[in-house]
Amino acid sequence: MSREQRKMLDDLLRHREPAKSQSVQEMRANFAAMMAAMKVPAGVRTAPTNLGNRPGVIVDPAQDARPGTILYFHGGSYIMGSPYTAMSLTANLVSKTRIRSVSLDYRLAPEHPFPAALKDALAAYRGLLEGGAQGASIVLAGDSAGGGITLTTCLMARDADLPMPAAVVMFSPGLDRTHSGASIDSKKGLDPFFTRESFTFTDTLYLAGQDPNHELVSPARFADLTGFPPLLLQVGTNELLLDDSTQLADRARAAGVDVILDVTADVPHVFQAFTDIIDEADQALDRAALFITQHLR
Amino acid sequence: MSREQRKMLDDLLRHREPAKSQSVQEMRANFAAMMAAMKVPAGVRTAPTNLGNRPGVIVDPAQDARPGTILYFHGGSYIMGSPYTAMSLTANLVSKTRIRSVSLDYRLAPEHPFPAALKDALAAYRGLLEGGAQGASIVLAGDSAGGGITLTTCLMARDADLPMPAAVVMFSPGLDRTHSGASIDSKKGLDPFFTRESFTFTDTLYLAGQDPNHELVSPARFADLTGFPPLLLQVGTNELLLDDSTQLADRARAAGVDVILDVTADVPHVFQAFTDIIDEADQALDRAALFITQHLR
Repeated sequence: MSREQRKMLDDLLRHREPAKSQSVQEMRANFAAMMAAMKVPAGVRTAPTNLGNRPGVIVDPAQDARPGTILYFHGGSYIMGSPYTAMSLTANLVSKTRIRSVSLDYRLAPEHPFPAALKDALAAYRGLLEGGAQGASIVLAGDSAGGGITLTTCLMARDADLPMPAAVVMFSPGLDRTHSGASIDSKKGLDPFFTRESFTFTDTLYLAGQDPNHELVSPARFADLTGFPPLLLQVGTNELLLDDSTQLADRARAAGVDVILDVTADVPHVFQAFTDIIDEADQALDRAALFITQHLR
Repeated sequence: MSREQRKMLDDLLRHREPAKSQSVQEMRANFAAMMAAMKVPAGVRTAPTNLGNRPGVIVDPAQDARPGTILYFHGGSYIMGSPYTAMSLTANLVSKTRIRSVSLDYRLAPEHPFPAALKDALAAYRGLLEGGAQGASIVLAGDSAGGGITLTTCLMARDADLPMPAAVVMFSPGLDRTHSGASIDSKKGLDPFFTRESFTFTDTLYLAGQDPNHELVSPARFADLTGFPPLLLQVGTNELLLDDSTQLADRARAAGVDVILDVTADVPHVFQAFTDIIDEADQALDRAALFITQHLR
């Protein structure tokens, strides 16, 4: 069954309309439409909030909430997305852990290129700490670009002498904008979402001429992870971004950081969003939920 | 706290008596004494059994058992150990999953060198199938040498046209008797249990002159993992055997196999046995239990 589900999902994604020649506004609208189809579990409530200098969305268990906060960063290549496009992922983590989340609406490129989003994320983390939370009571989580933001938030927090969070969860993170991993070529055609050219397009908007050889842009290659909290990386083997995760895991092990590299075969980018199509999505989210509850104090 | 616990465990292990110049009988007695100190959880029952051509021990949840079987293989470098030396690990998996286990007392070297133990393991797996179990209702699990046996059992089962098990759990497995990974040198002195020389000693007894360049001796280097079930590898960064796991994970990903490489920093070989000293042991076992229950049908 399960291998059939993976094939079904791949077929489904492969027969979308080609995404060529879209404006940024069209890309944002199409992304929001695609992600709006993702199933949001029952038993959670949402409410608008502000955190740091940006709006966000609180996602709360409807009952029996446990202490702690999951600070969530949505994906969308730094140019698309909002807390609502990632609501299925965020709400599933909340529902499974019974821990509330705050999902941040960080600034997007091209209007606000690197490092605007990262500054917003650090401000949000600082906001939680200044609101009385301990680092040990906060888990950072995110998908795709948002997975990268979890890691840069740790780097910037360390530089700012802020405490580390309790743990970090990354779904198919983008961690290397130099694209040095073998998967950028070896997974060509297997990845239903990305191509080298699509990365060039979004990287150019995000970087606005800035150097990708920077630890905050390509942490899988350049970041010193010493002292980082436990990391969970979940990624599919059909991803051009696969080696962003394998490289980061290598780097984490070498730095003495606890790291789980959780790889599911023959599934696409952020497969955890497809809970209504493949059983692997819900199972991966259950593993992420256990990881979160193990590390939150 | 947790980093202090890891340090405490390391100190404890580092101040054992040096293990030089022991006879095989002394090694077996000392290993049994060390492992007898490991905490066995309440709520499980044990009973002798036979499986294939060998004795074994059934470990049952005292109540509310769920369907399925964990076929467990103990560690001990193929020359030491029994189902009783691994009882803490086996019983914890049973207690946490409420799934019964059969732990196999396979033949040991030097009396019975390679491939005697592997044949016993295959016979045990075949015995479960002939007793009416489906492959999808069996999880293979093992520590150290026993972790290697889980994998060779899959290889031999495939060659014998038997169905694959549902999943495989490996705690600090030995998977490369050519010792080609960097960790054999880079972790020298960090590993409180092993040295290159100690591996040479036990490998010689196990292989009895046979070639380590064989997929059943060094599967991390030579095995074709195509069609394998989901794999969980748990390993510590202080292990000479660390890269047995990283190499196998690389190989599994390349073969399209689901694989979780779950690495805990600054802990020794089969740290999951030290539940009374470090919190990481119990947490790792909880993750293994979730993995098992996710894949058993």
